[in-house]
Amino acid sequence: MSGSDQVSKFYAYVDSHQEDFVQRLVHAVGYRSISSDQTKEGRNQVIEMGHWLRDQLAQFVVKPEDAELVELVIPDKTDLNLPPLVLARIGEDLQKKTVLVYGHYDVQPVGGWEAANPDNPNAFKLGTTDKEKLIGRGATDDKGPIMGWLNVLEAHKSIADDLGKPLAEILPVNIRFLFEGMEESSSVGLEKWINEEVKKTDKGWFKRVDCVCITDVYWLTTHRPSLTYGLRGIAFFSIDIEGATTDLHSGSFGRMVHEPMTDLVKLFSVLVETNGVIFKEVEEMVPEPTPAERKEYEDLKYEVSDLLQDIGNPVELDGKGVDLIMGRMRYPSLSIHGIKGAFDTITAAIPHNISGRFSIRLVGEQTPQKVFDIVDKFLRKEFDNLKSKNKMSLALETSGMPWVGNKDHWNFQAAHAAIQAVHDVAPVYARDGGSIPIVLTLEQALGGKNVLLLSMGKSDDGAHSLHEKLDRDNYFKGTKVYGTYLYELAKQDAS
Amino acid sequence: MSGSDQVSKFYAYVDSHQEDFVQRLVHAVGYRSISSDQTKEGRNQVIEMGHWLRDQLAQFVVKPEDAELVELVIPDKTDLNLPPLVLARIGEDLQKKTVLVYGHYDVQPVGGWEAANPDNPNAFKLGTTDKEKLIGRGATDDKGPIMGWLNVLEAHKSIADDLGKPLAEILPVNIRFLFEGMEESSSVGLEKWINEEVKKTDKGWFKRVDCVCITDVYWLTTHRPSLTYGLRGIAFFSIDIEGATTDLHSGSFGRMVHEPMTDLVKLFSVLVETNGVIFKEVEEMVPEPTPAERKEYEDLKYEVSDLLQDIGNPVELDGKGVDLIMGRMRYPSLSIHGIKGAFDTITAAIPHNISGRFSIRLVGEQTPQKVFDIVDKFLRKEFDNLKSKNKMSLALETSGMPWVGNKDHWNFQAAHAAIQAVHDVAPVYARDGGSIPIVLTLEQALGGKNVLLLSMGKSDDGAHSLHEKLDRDNYFKGTKVYGTYLYELAKQDAS
Repeated sequence: MSGSDQVSKFYAYVDSHQEDFVQRLVHAVGYRSISSDQTKEGRNQVIEMGHWLRDQLAQFVVKPEDAELVELVIPDKTDLNLPPLVLARIGEDLQKKTVLVYGHYDVQPVGGWEAANPDNPNAFKLGTTDKEKLIGRGATDDKGPIMGWLNVLEAHKSIADDLGKPLAEILPVNIRFLFEGMEESSSVGLEKWINEEVKKTDKGWFKRVDCVCITDVYWLTTHRPSLTYGLRGIAFFSIDIEGATTDLHSGSFGRMVHEPMTDLVKLFSVLVETNGVIFKEVEEMVPEPTPAERKEYEDLKYEVSDLLQDIGNPVELDGKGVDLIMGRMRYPSLSIHGIKGAFDTITAAIPHNISGRFSIRLVGEQTPQKVFDIVDKFLRKEFDNLKSKNKMSLALETSGMPWVGNKDHWNFQAAHAAIQAVHDVAPVYARDGGSIPIVLTLEQALGGKNVLLLSMGKSDDGAHSLHEKLDRDNYFKGTKVYGTYLYELAKQDAS
Repeated sequence: MSGSDQVSKFYAYVDSHQEDFVQRLVHAVGYRSISSDQTKEGRNQVIEMGHWLRDQLAQFVVKPEDAELVELVIPDKTDLNLPPLVLARIGEDLQKKTVLVYGHYDVQPVGGWEAANPDNPNAFKLGTTDKEKLIGRGATDDKGPIMGWLNVLEAHKSIADDLGKPLAEILPVNIRFLFEGMEESSSVGLEKWINEEVKKTDKGWFKRVDCVCITDVYWLTTHRPSLTYGLRGIAFFSIDIEGATTDLHSGSFGRMVHEPMTDLVKLFSVLVETNGVIFKEVEEMVPEPTPAERKEYEDLKYEVSDLLQDIGNPVELDGKGVDLIMGRMRYPSLSIHGIKGAFDTITAAIPHNISGRFSIRLVGEQTPQKVFDIVDKFLRKEFDNLKSKNKMSLALETSGMPWVGNKDHWNFQAAHAAIQAVHDVAPVYARDGGSIPIVLTLEQALGGKNVLLLSMGKSDDGAHSLHEKLDRDNYFKGTKVYGTYLYELAKQDAS
């Protein structure tokens, strides 16, 4: 059977098994695998999902030990076990390329979901009555994509059985699956495991991996597929301000003492302008775009209406789509998240020890440490100008480097061709505003192997929100794209 | 027996019953009467304290019905009963003046007390081992003062028994007690009851009241007694800012949308300066002090060290005591308390709908409504300048008018003489920075009868804090001052 015959059979299988695939996602969404749930029952649901996923993969591997669970060592004080890594390997053919596929089976919390979804009140019961959308927690982030890979395997197993051949033989590439259960909770333990594994002389589990495909990402818009080749970095900061030794009554002490909240809002207010521009020293680290670069962003044809679909109210920063999308992709951003130690109810107290939390998304040459040094110097100067007797200090909390991959690599070309084949349109090349530390971790651990971010869902899928969904069409076509990508990988000249 | 003989006997009784009085306070502090506790058991503890207090007062009244509990109608949605008002009347002599005494038997919450007080870990078990301090929740606010009044009654009952006369006959004035159990929770229901009572043709329970004495206040410093004749008013505000229809991921949407937190901190930052000065339009409502007025404040001899005792760290606004105390007494102040809808933990979200909370303490002509109008106009202008597409609105929440009483009234002169007699020093006349709505409520309901704020505890007693205490010396001398005040009231020419 020729490659294209096999692809046709694969598409036919996907088309005729849509309801089965939906039921697979129904089952997966059914696990309350919230990794941030610190109760024992909560954590057990994540672990249970990991076990089920391993069992699913076990149907497709050659030897039973090729689908395994890796228990991670607990690095913190909690007495909860970490959810296991789920690993599977299919194919050991030295003539084929080997692709590493990454995804995660844990999800975000669902507080408020019921009120937000009267028609689909249970976040863990996938809503399937809508003709277009599959509604539920994890539908798009990241259970849909993982189920997409299982769909690909199931279809090819059927084709292999028809041919009386082993699955591994008919697959165009060797595949390594790496699924984690702590992605929504800082991927605790994963980086350590990866870095220990690649220290092994044969690079351990990552032996002979040629490229990486990560499916934890979304289309740039709702109407055209995209490939993601860049991510902003992230630096979380806290400004701590200490005043009196205890909270004071504002009646007795108002206008007698320096109030930490007054200092904090003044510092916050000079960090960023209403139009999103950060203070000068941070902006100066980013060169203005060349006309050619601006043209690239114009070619994305991102429209204000694309953003409005995602944000609901018309609070966009700019009138032009190109400026908006450049704000996300190639400029740093600063968001103030909240204040620890203050009061959100009516109270007469002057908070005495507060911690203001903000983050900066990083691009280009902006490393967390470089930006920390600049922010620290800036805030010290501003605080000195305030002439406050309170004490101020700045701390860098979690952080991650910005990343731009090589979008001209054959890994991207394979994905490009797969999208063209399935969607009949070329993908747009996008940089995402978020930060996915696993991308840089894998790229570095694998000595610079190309990492592709291949999306299944749309920009309005609402990952993390109380309206998370995955369009049926994206689920089925995404499954086809994943499978086609494997064939296209095989065709690439990797010499 | 002459008046002065009787006073001597009263002092002797206080001196010889110190341990009994301490035990009375131990018992009173033992009730967990936290009015903000919205559980049924919590509320029941407040109610139980009210019943005990009524029973205590019942020992001293003429007829049983002269000590009564008033059930307040519940004005809100909670299904908890309100704690009762505890009323008692002693004396109906038309030849004597009638004084109304107000206090409250509920207390503030105690979260964190145990960690803050390793030597006195139970806030409701009065710490009595310290030679100077009685440590516990409610010791100074306001159970100590209420027990002081019970001490006065007990001493005089003993004197009356010795003389074979009724208590009411030997007391120099008629007394009306009004103790509430919701003071720390906005005095729910009290104002309504007072205003209905005074509508009665004979003015109901307030019949023939000549003056009022409120004991819910503290010395200006730690070293000299004071009488309080003024209070700042209060206006609580919330600035609401609405952006997108949902919280957004700062990675995906940072630098694409107007962020409500950015707008809010910019508005907060122009409301008040680091030195405590509020924006111009609010400051302009307050005339500068005349040299004579400044002299009055200088005569208080308030020192920076007095403030440092209360606040712990050296974060005072000014280098001079007189400027500090004028900041509390005669200038408005603005405190930012916190933000509702933001996050105090590490999160990547852009909060979409937030509410910033602040309050302004009012003086002189500053009514809550006048100041609201000024703040609203100011913030609208500032918000327009920001050119944000978010929506902003300002709301006035709870509020109270500023108050300055007549410190030359005979009610104050009686208290002045009592303090001089017991402490051998004249009191300083102070205005407090806080707000006690019951003062204005009673003054207005009683058609302008003089209201005196007579303190028992010191400035460092830490009402509301996790280090609340009452000095033994203040408890015993305060009891003597209360009793002496009654004799001095009787001497005053009220014509």
